[in-house]
Amino acid sequence: MSDDVRNIDDALSRITAYWQPHRLTSINDYDVKVVKIHGEFVWHDHPDTDELFMVLNGELIIQLRDRDVVLGPNDVFVVPRGVEHRPKADEEVHALLFEPKGTVNTGSAGGEMTSPLRELP
Amino acid sequence: MSDDVRNIDDALSRITAYWQPHRLTSINDYDVKVVKIHGEFVWHDHPDTDELFMVLNGELIIQLRDRDVVLGPNDVFVVPRGVEHRPKADEEVHALLFEPKGTVNTGSAGGEMTSPLRELP
Repeated sequence: MSDDVRNIDDALSRITAYWQPHRLTSINDYDVKVVKIHGEFVWHDHPDTDELFMVLNGELIIQLRDRDVVLGPNDVFVVPRGVEHRPKADEEVHALLFEPKGTVNTGSAGGEMTSPLRELP
Repeated sequence: MSDDVRNIDDALSRITAYWQPHRLTSINDYDVKVVKIHGEFVWHDHPDTDELFMVLNGELIIQLRDRDVVLGPNDVFVVPRGVEHRPKADEEVHALLFEPKGTVNTGSAGGEMTSPLRELP
């Protein structure tokens, strides 16, 4: 499936809310998602999949139970499946996520920060 | 699997040759690859998988049989499985690739530009 050319900066300009992943494009049964992050998310894990974070702008902290992983621009980190984590950012962060279709942002935790994957407006 | 934090700029600084994909990190059974591109590649397709290109720097042209797709910085394009394509760049381009483990750069074409996936030095 092709979405033809998608531009990350254009995608970011269309996103207004934090913690709402939007689909940039897809490859096979994986989605590439764009998200704006600010504040603290919820502790959660994804029992069935790894999750890739790529920071575009800002500083993203991914809290693990035993340490904090600090990511700056162009840093990439993969949270292994089943590992509890909590993303947080004191200032606005722009990031890409790579993960299998159907991966829910709050994983097995659920709750009010659960967000469906949105198409770009 | 986690490779801990990988930085795209650091990875690029370690790559000296064109058309040699290096593994940045992996998620499930997919690899994220970094590559430097200059000149013309070979026409090829990947019968079993889509292939995602993300341009970091420069202008990458992905020739399809019926048109040229022109990609600039932060542009993302997915070549659908089975679609013949030829990447080319008049000036140096830095790009990320996202595709299933085992995907060969020259696909079903083979030939002297075939390159194994390398680990970063």
